[in-house]
Amino acid sequence: MLTVHTEKHRLRASKTELYGGVLVPPFECPERVEIVMNRIQEVGLGEVIGPDSFGLDPIRRIHQPDFLDFLANCWSEWQAAGFKGEAIAPNWPARRMVQRPPNHIDGKIGYYALATETSISEGTWEAALASAEVALTARRKISEGARSAFALCRPPGHHATYDMYGGYCFLNNVAIAAQAWLVEGAERIAILDVDFHHGNGTQDIFYERDDVLFLSLHGEPENAFPYFLGYANETGSGKGEGYNVNYPLPENTGFERWSECLEDACKRISRYAPDALIVSLGVDTYKEDPISFFKLDSDDYLTYGERIGKLGLPTLFCFEGGYAVQQVGINAVNVLEGFEQA
Amino acid sequence: MLTVHTEKHRLRASKTELYGGVLVPPFECPERVEIVMNRIQEVGLGEVIGPDSFGLDPIRRIHQPDFLDFLANCWSEWQAAGFKGEAIAPNWPARRMVQRPPNHIDGKIGYYALATETSISEGTWEAALASAEVALTARRKISEGARSAFALCRPPGHHATYDMYGGYCFLNNVAIAAQAWLVEGAERIAILDVDFHHGNGTQDIFYERDDVLFLSLHGEPENAFPYFLGYANETGSGKGEGYNVNYPLPENTGFERWSECLEDACKRISRYAPDALIVSLGVDTYKEDPISFFKLDSDDYLTYGERIGKLGLPTLFCFEGGYAVQQVGINAVNVLEGFEQA
Repeated sequence: MLTVHTEKHRLRASKTELYGGVLVPPFECPERVEIVMNRIQEVGLGEVIGPDSFGLDPIRRIHQPDFLDFLANCWSEWQAAGFKGEAIAPNWPARRMVQRPPNHIDGKIGYYALATETSISEGTWEAALASAEVALTARRKISEGARSAFALCRPPGHHATYDMYGGYCFLNNVAIAAQAWLVEGAERIAILDVDFHHGNGTQDIFYERDDVLFLSLHGEPENAFPYFLGYANETGSGKGEGYNVNYPLPENTGFERWSECLEDACKRISRYAPDALIVSLGVDTYKEDPISFFKLDSDDYLTYGERIGKLGLPTLFCFEGGYAVQQVGINAVNVLEGFEQA
Repeated sequence: MLTVHTEKHRLRASKTELYGGVLVPPFECPERVEIVMNRIQEVGLGEVIGPDSFGLDPIRRIHQPDFLDFLANCWSEWQAAGFKGEAIAPNWPARRMVQRPPNHIDGKIGYYALATETSISEGTWEAALASAEVALTARRKISEGARSAFALCRPPGHHATYDMYGGYCFLNNVAIAAQAWLVEGAERIAILDVDFHHGNGTQDIFYERDDVLFLSLHGEPENAFPYFLGYANETGSGKGEGYNVNYPLPENTGFERWSECLEDACKRISRYAPDALIVSLGVDTYKEDPISFFKLDSDDYLTYGERIGKLGLPTLFCFEGGYAVQQVGINAVNVLEGFEQA
């Protein structure tokens, strides 16, 4: 399988994550991609290429212009304000408050944030752009004839909405790739999110549409980030009714229960008969992940990769989460190898 | 003037405030009250008494039961979760997300928060309760015949809504006092908020009511916390239309412009003819305040205290913000002395 990768992911190198009331080194770190790359080379997964340039047009089809301006300028505005740390939202437009971006960066950042664990720092915007281009490049290779490709995206994307960042995500890579497929002429795209965390951003972006089927297996929102989206009763609205499928799962969910949900999701994908499938490939479902609570083991990734492969669809894998850093490579590449064995 | 004060404010002693992306010692610190107490004794302002007990009934008339449960249990739940720092919200129900409190404290805290600068720690709940009782006691003294009283509340209250904390505030002391007056038989209460920051919590609580007139002079929301409320066009709704008056003011506003707004506010209060006036007395309008941008000088506090005194109303002063710690005593007590000279 072809992999698209760029060293530009290293530009995303924030030093602080707010976790449990203290600032810690971010769980979402550059080493994650290094370890996946090492594993790709170790198993000889296939060719590795760099991303092409696409400009902002495909990104503007998903994200609001003012949000993109914010992302591009946040770090310089934060520094100009004289703050000493990385950029973290101090407050936000909470219930019954006015949904309008303020002028001062100290307030503006809260308008465009949905979480505080994610600091914005030097290079964040450049890395986010490169990550979207990794996804767009891999998608184009499939469009040009490859059966599948792996976009080794970093930073990840599935938590980003059209106007908010958070959960380590800034631009929604899978949404940008899905829209590019539709612009090119595809009629239906399915997005399967197997990251431990609910893909709230992807759900939000396509919630009222029937040209993208979104399915997510994730930790139940009562007890897992992002906490405020991902319930089973969120099934889409308007034209999108029925095209959003959530599988919230409780603490200690193992592969048996998880794969029952995957089976249901795969059947729904088959019935939808999409032109292509995009997989939000997070491997924080792993039993030793430090910030998640499912119990998948490394072999399970081979098994479910094979099940996805049996769908027989052109398939773009976009890398999302996974924080048990030493096992991230084996688990992610197991999915890809399982897919190829199908 | 009578002062109500309790040493229980010291139970609010969090060690961390998220400011500019780093954790710093909180601007809202116990020393603030010590310095005000010293000044009260220095000028011989009058008797100082402790608070009475009132139970939770008068607090439940303003705040939702689930929010009070959250405040009472947050710190123990946070500790039980194994987190190492003080309790700070990592995310929240942002735009288009579900407004429902999760089970896990890591998510639940974001449902009940409107800001991250305010850590919850050991003793926060007990101090917040004591602060509300300080306000209730001072109010009762006026009800029993005193013309005025100073509730030396700490933590402050005006940012707290009926279901959210933030901006160093947990229980809305002035709202609780206003409601107690109404329960006792008053027909109209005016609340004048002269703190640098908009009293978003107080506005929110009374926004649809005409039995409380709320007026706030504050830094414009485009550039000042809480950023997402306090615009001039927020005038109340339903029965409350016309009973909410905001005076947002720009950077470097000096006393001349500020006192024009105060004059307008005083005229509106006179026309309203309330049974009593409550003043949210923040002195972070001071020229050297470290987190605010108005330019009032110490003598100005005497002047405007006198103007408030000329209203001739039973008046309860409740302490709110003010972070130029060494000048907090002079400035706050100047307002009270000016009031008595009227």
